[in-house]
Amino acid sequence: MGKTIAEKIFSEKSGEDAYAGDIVIARVDQIALQDGTAPLAIRQIQALGIDEKNIKGAEITHFFVDHAAPSPRKELSNDHKFICEFAVKAGADFSKPGNGIIHQIMVEKYVNPGDLVVGADSHTCTYGALGAFSTGMGSTDVAIAVALGKNWFRVPETFRVEVNGKMPEGVYPKDLMLTIIGELGVDGATYKALEFHGDTIDSMYIDGRLTMANMAIECGAKAGLFKSDEETKRFLAERGRADRFREIKPDSDAEYEKELYFDAGDLEPVVSKPHNVDNVAPVSEVEGTPVDQVFVGTCTNGRLSDIEIVARMLEGRKVSENVRLIVGPASREIYLQADERGYLKTIVEAGGMVIPPGCGPCVGIHMGILADGEVCVSTQNRNFKGRMGNPEAEIYLASPATAAATAIEGKITDPRKYL
Amino acid sequence: MGKTIAEKIFSEKSGEDAYAGDIVIARVDQIALQDGTAPLAIRQIQALGIDEKNIKGAEITHFFVDHAAPSPRKELSNDHKFICEFAVKAGADFSKPGNGIIHQIMVEKYVNPGDLVVGADSHTCTYGALGAFSTGMGSTDVAIAVALGKNWFRVPETFRVEVNGKMPEGVYPKDLMLTIIGELGVDGATYKALEFHGDTIDSMYIDGRLTMANMAIECGAKAGLFKSDEETKRFLAERGRADRFREIKPDSDAEYEKELYFDAGDLEPVVSKPHNVDNVAPVSEVEGTPVDQVFVGTCTNGRLSDIEIVARMLEGRKVSENVRLIVGPASREIYLQADERGYLKTIVEAGGMVIPPGCGPCVGIHMGILADGEVCVSTQNRNFKGRMGNPEAEIYLASPATAAATAIEGKITDPRKYL
Repeated sequence: MGKTIAEKIFSEKSGEDAYAGDIVIARVDQIALQDGTAPLAIRQIQALGIDEKNIKGAEITHFFVDHAAPSPRKELSNDHKFICEFAVKAGADFSKPGNGIIHQIMVEKYVNPGDLVVGADSHTCTYGALGAFSTGMGSTDVAIAVALGKNWFRVPETFRVEVNGKMPEGVYPKDLMLTIIGELGVDGATYKALEFHGDTIDSMYIDGRLTMANMAIECGAKAGLFKSDEETKRFLAERGRADRFREIKPDSDAEYEKELYFDAGDLEPVVSKPHNVDNVAPVSEVEGTPVDQVFVGTCTNGRLSDIEIVARMLEGRKVSENVRLIVGPASREIYLQADERGYLKTIVEAGGMVIPPGCGPCVGIHMGILADGEVCVSTQNRNFKGRMGNPEAEIYLASPATAAATAIEGKITDPRKYL
Repeated sequence: MGKTIAEKIFSEKSGEDAYAGDIVIARVDQIALQDGTAPLAIRQIQALGIDEKNIKGAEITHFFVDHAAPSPRKELSNDHKFICEFAVKAGADFSKPGNGIIHQIMVEKYVNPGDLVVGADSHTCTYGALGAFSTGMGSTDVAIAVALGKNWFRVPETFRVEVNGKMPEGVYPKDLMLTIIGELGVDGATYKALEFHGDTIDSMYIDGRLTMANMAIECGAKAGLFKSDEETKRFLAERGRADRFREIKPDSDAEYEKELYFDAGDLEPVVSKPHNVDNVAPVSEVEGTPVDQVFVGTCTNGRLSDIEIVARMLEGRKVSENVRLIVGPASREIYLQADERGYLKTIVEAGGMVIPPGCGPCVGIHMGILADGEVCVSTQNRNFKGRMGNPEAEIYLASPATAAATAIEGKITDPRKYL
């Protein structure tokens, strides 16, 4: 019987002929933890009495400080110190503040097609863009993966999502993914894997696929999977990992629980309105809504192509006096590329701020907490009440283009006005 | 009878023949408030029943958001909103997050030689570098200045500080000022004005004078005053204010309460050891002390020449893996100049972080709070216990050169090693 991408990867990693619904023990290739969840995982390892010198997954474990980088509270600083000390003792990798966001660095440096990756962060699903099965787990489960280098998994059923056609000007992968989530609903794919196909996907750059895979969890999916292809090869080759390319694709007779079809030509710029990701509406419906802050960044849309869109739109223009524009490159690599190309200068000259690589205000810890009654347009992946640190504020999710047009006008604006 | 700079300025602004010890009512030229203190001043104005439409100092009042920019807590975000709303209603100036530090923007844009300036921040004394008498006041006194455009002052006695000779390689105005404070003690000049003279001062760029004036308060002084000269003229002309130049200098027969002499040729790189600014020691005494964080920035040393020193030293080198290097340009202008010259790229490439213009971790609110037991070398002006957000941490004050050398080595290092 044919297999989906998820079934193929779990078969290989478990050594069994695995299908949706099976429970398997599988070897994981990489493990990622961030400063919010790592302390919990480490304390579980310690509570289980596992010797720090005998961590089987040490070599594939990566600790990141990105949620509070650099730290806004001494309690978090102490967490960072605790994580670093454990990483050094265990022989695991530690990424210090300023290197960037866990998910961006994982794809830049470590994740390859066909890998099975777990992470103590819900957006670990991002790496599906490279044809890896990656998923977020609770800290205790990640602790077991760190300790043993493997864990148990239930192989998920897969929804096949096919997108064909050319996206109109001003419409981006973020708009496509928000549209899909709007259709599915926030729990429409709970515990399923999404598998993306169609000519729109085939012609999409890795940056766009990362945006889409990243948000798979926003309709409940465990993973958002893409075939590996020439674009994947290019991405790996640019980072010196051409040899790690493998062709990853489902069998032609794989079985899917559901199939969805989208016509990219029908898309328009959209936002997720407060306070749910699936509360999706065309930008035209909310155009003119006054905005206090615009944030471009995060593991969803903090990549070079995202920052490029913003810089191009701001060139020769000014950010509205009423808006705080905050831009956060997702990694040190992206920061340096954006700086090299003059994007950061353009953004700061226009009146924006560039924060160091990291999660910035997305997680509500620092660097742009909203005031009561304020409205933010953000390129991040979640707009739950309180997500950005204040339950009395409102968050609209959008593409970097919509965010930039909004920053210029001081109110929600269709990006096609500035193309 | 001859007059000091302070006596001359207070005479002009009060319309009286004012000398040290006199109490005068004087007109102020500029008023500066930041997000930490502005809410208190505004609430005083409101408590006094002063109509927001009838603020006599509105046109000369500047509100800044720099202490928490962008905001790490909703309570502070609400303060920012409160300040902005008041500024708009009163017709005062409001500088949004990302523009930079109050004291840097005041000298870049507003303060001229001979001005009398008050601010709701202790380091308002910075503007003395331009030959202005500027001083920090409590929020209530600043509120009165905002409401009336004037206030009462006691004309301070002046200490004349003469510095002659050429500073050795690796020694900077910060080292000179720390040495002076070490000599005077933290309360050695309480309520006095310092007046700096000598050929070392005459040949010092404005950036260095700003560093020195900024720290006048660290030995208790109300102001740190410099003559205006060709260098002052250059600084003003570069910012389109050549016409605002005036010669400011004391009378040759002015009376000083005390005269101090320093030989710049005798200086060496120094630090202020924890936990007092006057706890000054040669770098050689503490060399090798392991360091966890290095911060270059603030109203003391976040200017272009400071960032240039750091970038030049980091060129082709790496920040120690054990150190978080945080660099904060003091203003948007400085950020853009540093970016244009490639300094920010060099710093980030070497492993550092660049934060948006603002106070950064200096005031212990965010962007680099230390963990328990951690050690920081910072170019800021205060190292009191808890200053950077954690009383269990230690802060050494130093020049940007000492800070950069320390960042490379991961331990306190004499900058002359890297010149």
